[in-house]
Amino acid sequence: MSHEASPLALPFPAMPAIAGVTLRVARAGYKNWGRCDLTYVELSPGTAVAGVFTRNVCCSSEVELGREAVKQGRARALVVNAGNSNAFTGYRGREAVEQIMEQVAGHLECPMDEVFVSSTGVIGVPLPKDKARAGIEAALRAEPCGWEEAANTIGTTDTFAKGAWAQAIVDGKTVTLAAIIKGSGMIAPDMATMLGYIFTDCAIEPEFLQQLLSAANQRSFSCITVDSDTSTSDTVLAFATGKAANGPLGSFEDAGADAFAAALDDVCRQLAHLVVRDGEGAQKFIAISVRGAVSDESARKVGLAIANSPLVKTAIAGEDANWGRVVMAVGKAGEPADRDRLSIGFGGTWAAREGQPLADYDEAPVAAHLKGREVSIEVDLGLGDGAATVWTCDLTHGYISINADYRS
Amino acid sequence: MSHEASPLALPFPAMPAIAGVTLRVARAGYKNWGRCDLTYVELSPGTAVAGVFTRNVCCSSEVELGREAVKQGRARALVVNAGNSNAFTGYRGREAVEQIMEQVAGHLECPMDEVFVSSTGVIGVPLPKDKARAGIEAALRAEPCGWEEAANTIGTTDTFAKGAWAQAIVDGKTVTLAAIIKGSGMIAPDMATMLGYIFTDCAIEPEFLQQLLSAANQRSFSCITVDSDTSTSDTVLAFATGKAANGPLGSFEDAGADAFAAALDDVCRQLAHLVVRDGEGAQKFIAISVRGAVSDESARKVGLAIANSPLVKTAIAGEDANWGRVVMAVGKAGEPADRDRLSIGFGGTWAAREGQPLADYDEAPVAAHLKGREVSIEVDLGLGDGAATVWTCDLTHGYISINADYRS
Repeated sequence: MSHEASPLALPFPAMPAIAGVTLRVARAGYKNWGRCDLTYVELSPGTAVAGVFTRNVCCSSEVELGREAVKQGRARALVVNAGNSNAFTGYRGREAVEQIMEQVAGHLECPMDEVFVSSTGVIGVPLPKDKARAGIEAALRAEPCGWEEAANTIGTTDTFAKGAWAQAIVDGKTVTLAAIIKGSGMIAPDMATMLGYIFTDCAIEPEFLQQLLSAANQRSFSCITVDSDTSTSDTVLAFATGKAANGPLGSFEDAGADAFAAALDDVCRQLAHLVVRDGEGAQKFIAISVRGAVSDESARKVGLAIANSPLVKTAIAGEDANWGRVVMAVGKAGEPADRDRLSIGFGGTWAAREGQPLADYDEAPVAAHLKGREVSIEVDLGLGDGAATVWTCDLTHGYISINADYRS
Repeated sequence: MSHEASPLALPFPAMPAIAGVTLRVARAGYKNWGRCDLTYVELSPGTAVAGVFTRNVCCSSEVELGREAVKQGRARALVVNAGNSNAFTGYRGREAVEQIMEQVAGHLECPMDEVFVSSTGVIGVPLPKDKARAGIEAALRAEPCGWEEAANTIGTTDTFAKGAWAQAIVDGKTVTLAAIIKGSGMIAPDMATMLGYIFTDCAIEPEFLQQLLSAANQRSFSCITVDSDTSTSDTVLAFATGKAANGPLGSFEDAGADAFAAALDDVCRQLAHLVVRDGEGAQKFIAISVRGAVSDESARKVGLAIANSPLVKTAIAGEDANWGRVVMAVGKAGEPADRDRLSIGFGGTWAAREGQPLADYDEAPVAAHLKGREVSIEVDLGLGDGAATVWTCDLTHGYISINADYRS
């Protein structure tokens, strides 16, 4: 964890253990950090796995191998390296990932493709194999640790540890989901743009877990942006150990599937919000609600055009109800819109309706709203029933300082 | 002109007069500025006109009316209002534009649709009709002025006056092009994203002028970006008075058409570069050359993904040869790319070739190059023959200060 904590930080929740999940951390020394940087999670035999990965075509070997391995549906371990993303490192980077998979598979006596590896940090430097090997050895010997320690260990430029949990009743059993995530910059929605891990004791078929995770992703990680830049390593994995001993979920026909899906949605949305709350330089958490679009997907795209507009983000940073910049962003989104049906509001107060400034617009409540830490922008396109909410943060001097005022 | 001049500013060139073009400026008082804010250009009868306009669907009435009027191909006057964009102002904004067109058409005894109007400034405030009427009256009485005064008068957040000119031999006659432009923020390439006006004494058919302007636009204004935000009012108009008395150009079959097209290209590229040089907060002028793409258009899109990446722009601001961020931007562009064929360089020095950091990469010349005011980034996708160059500036604290540290 670097820098001062974000003013939008939330305290780490008291999260329950998940049966079948054991966390350990160690110091591989990928960077000259005075803290652990390697996280090792052991999963009980038979754990189901599902994943969503970056769509950046210059993705890392970790993403390539993980995308392939997730298809067989089972996982025994997760290794997360922090400080080096191992992306754009050619065959040497791939060899390092394969070495980690081999080493852990040998220890657990499981197939190599049941070991999932993620790496995050600088691009273009092959992950050093000797440090990885020694780090894994140290992790295998280490005492188990808790969620917060693991959440801290997967972080890079994050300013606070991020975790979320939820429960649901499935087949008369209480199932628990616990999750950690890292991410702060290079956050844009073409899947996830960060590393997130969700663990549950629910018994569920891998195919159904994948279906639920993909759907939850569309409403959470795909609806956030910090800087419109899509990472080469984004990964969200969900692991289900089955230790709750509920009747395994295989489809929405099964009792409790809706409850589990809702809990998974809840955890994904919490995680996505935490990433925005740690957006580089963020001073304000911004929710943008778009309705009246021709479809939900169109609403999401309009919302993201607003959320990615530097002029909108700087206006919010300046506590300026500059709805003209919102109009501009709607217009450039490339989605159906009609200037003369467009309405825009802040914090529940309309500033413009149907293409014109409101004659009796009272800026006082809007000005008060914009001074707060949590800002909402409402857009009604007036065309149809499509709706979506996206989340972002403001663009401040802090973002420039973090990304420009140093050399890599 | 506000703020201190951009460190990338160029001196205003000594530009020749264009026969058939008379410039005048006046003070309409749209904002509380101590300077002229209304530009009136009278064009001799028979002047051909062509135009390209913003694709932002929330465009202003000026853009709607101009896009319609340009189809008839002739122009007698141009009026540019600075300080109020009149965008998103409904029927009241449209009435103000029509009043200006009527007033000038009455004075010149010409059809209303031969009067072109542009406005730039704050969105959402109807252009005050009384100020516009009095401003036009003052302009009609004013003494003619020169290019630099007109260039200053059309500016808003611009920090320096921008002009460019070129000449070509057409049909044995020297034809001259002179042009002015304004633009600094809300600059993204979905046509032009600024106001630019090109005047020439060349005799040319309006349809052919439109064809040449549209083509030049694709290689100039459509290849620049400051902040990825597309204005609601962007307009580039070309006016040709025909006073050079060359045999009128109607197609590329005509002698001198190639020379005129090249001169027009040259002027458009000069204007586009000037806008980037006045990018809000700009400290460095960045040229991004992409080759090896599957098509020129694909190369342009990859270039713009790099040019619009906040992480690339802040890295250049920090004089950091962070080619990993360039990889990321290539990968998120949504265009064909192959990580393992990708090469990236700065200032002519390759940092990575075919998907891997160069073993003998010498950062010294790159570090020296990045300290300069003009930075180049070279990308070879290794796939095909497509190539394009795009231009942008870095993202600095200055951009945040200009756009966040004040209230509108």
